[in-house]
Amino acid sequence: MTETPAESPAESTEAMLARLRASFDRQGMMSTLGVEVTAAGRGRVEMALRHDDRFTQQHGFLHAGAVASVLDTACGYAAYSVMPPEAAVLTAAYTINLLAPAAGERFTITGEVVRAGRTLVVCRGEAFADGDTRPFAVMQATLTAVYNRPGISG
Amino acid sequence: MTETPAESPAESTEAMLARLRASFDRQGMMSTLGVEVTAAGRGRVEMALRHDDRFTQQHGFLHAGAVASVLDTACGYAAYSVMPPEAAVLTAAYTINLLAPAAGERFTITGEVVRAGRTLVVCRGEAFADGDTRPFAVMQATLTAVYNRPGISG
Amino acid sequence: MTETPAESPAESTEAMLARLRASFDRQGMMSTLGVEVTAAGRGRVEMALRHDDRFTQQHGFLHAGAVASVLDTACGYAAYSVMPPEAAVLTAAYTINLLAPAAGERFTITGEVVRAGRTLVVCRGEAFADGDTRPFAVMQATLTAVYNRPGISG
Amino acid sequence: MTETPAESPAESTEAMLARLRASFDRQGMMSTLGVEVTAAGRGRVEMALRHDDRFTQQHGFLHAGAVASVLDTACGYAAYSVMPPEAAVLTAAYTINLLAPAAGERFTITGEVVRAGRTLVVCRGEAFADGDTRPFAVMQATLTAVYNRPGISG
Repeated sequence: MTETPAESPAESTEAMLARLRASFDRQGMMSTLGVEVTAAGRGRVEMALRHDDRFTQQHGFLHAGAVASVLDTACGYAAYSVMPPEAAVLTAAYTINLLAPAAGERFTITGEVVRAGRTLVVCRGEAFADGDTRPFAVMQATLTAVYNRPGISG
Repeated sequence: MTETPAESPAESTEAMLARLRASFDRQGMMSTLGVEVTAAGRGRVEMALRHDDRFTQQHGFLHAGAVASVLDTACGYAAYSVMPPEAAVLTAAYTINLLAPAAGERFTITGEVVRAGRTLVVCRGEAFADGDTRPFAVMQATLTAVYNRPGISG
Repeated sequence: MTETPAESPAESTEAMLARLRASFDRQGMMSTLGVEVTAAGRGRVEMALRHDDRFTQQHGFLHAGAVASVLDTACGYAAYSVMPPEAAVLTAAYTINLLAPAAGERFTITGEVVRAGRTLVVCRGEAFADGDTRPFAVMQATLTAVYNRPGISG
Repeated sequence: MTETPAESPAESTEAMLARLRASFDRQGMMSTLGVEVTAAGRGRVEMALRHDDRFTQQHGFLHAGAVASVLDTACGYAAYSVMPPEAAVLTAAYTINLLAPAAGERFTITGEVVRAGRTLVVCRGEAFADGDTRPFAVMQATLTAVYNRPGISG
């Protein structure tokens, strides 16, 4: 879509990680789900989620919605990490494929930028159960950079 | 895809609603989110969700993941309602578009069957804030009927 | 996503249809596929496509790509019809579900705006074979309004 | 989704490539678009497509539908390559993100299996223009293995 890559060369990685962390810490949903950021860099974020009976579907596995929430968030912050500091990030759309039930104790969830434009950033996410090397869920997400919208920052 | 429509003419609507309700009641995620089933029939389900600070994103709106969880569940039960009683339902994939932030107090979320095959059922979902007649989120979902899989029923 | 609806109240329906037609007529793909615009209004476009052995998949049905091309175009012009006259339209993303093979002689394909923002417009498309009232394919599409991009108009 | 991986250990790679080629050669659409298979192995297929004014959109770039047709086909054959020989392959759904217009002369398009189940196979596709190493389009696709359906083989 948009051709000019989003870049923020003036911003240090440290400053970027600080604004990412500040935004993450404001998410009630991440705190409720008990999600941890286990790795973060420019264009890639990794998170961890644990099985919890409060977030199951009818067969006792983690609900797709819990997995999708963290995949979406990992993709969102991967996108946010390459946006200019003054941008806020919103999810425009995503597609999730669930390849197997979310069976396991601990889930590793990654988000990675595929390509960033001025407004739209496309990311890919993957979710892994315990030590599995094959993802049980994959996401393709479209994030938007929002500027100067009242009440929306970070 | 699959051509033969899933049909369960022998099952009464009452029996269908009972198995839908039994499955819904086993979802820890729906109970945690405080979701109510406000209407259910063959091929269409409506649910209600309230704003809750435990489920917000960084700008204070309801997290897309919370909305997606309920849209996915509404689509899942719309699909389940037209499946044979011996089938279990799993989400294979969905796409969600977020047209505006989830700003409001009470959200009405619907799931509806577009077309049902033997194995795959495609549904559409819509999410509305308070009295708004335009959806702030839409979903296109692919559900699978699963038969005779150990540990997976309902 | 973007909250302010795209509107072009100053533009007459006639002028809108003229710019839509001018853009459509520049599409080599639509001419090659033999697509006709059978109806167009603000926010909704209908097109017709015929079976043609040049565009089949391996089982002799119309290729999903041919159907998707027309669904995407119908959604694109539905979005374009509500954009300001100075905007160009580009597809950012779409999801297509194929509910049955594209078996038939003549296919009716519709695109409809779900909600329009300043930059992003979300549409839904449906494809019907011959006189069938159930779609054999459905699309959820995200279109972008592009302004002042060299070489991109219409 | 489906847990048991599709495997066909008894089939030689040569036999697999032969049935893939036979199926590809029956696609009118691939012949019309002038698509070549440039590489194929178990779980991964690469194709080449050239710019052609017959397949353009309104700005003179290749139509998203042409790109999507080849991405879908590359994903389809990547999936088919890991299916049992008696299966036929159909596309159930896909999501495409268009990250930049399809500007260029020659496009390399890849399809790769993410994970294969008994019935559903999930693939990822990427499209590259000329010598670019960043994709201008990405796809997440859901393919179905079909057995014993009259008129559908390959």
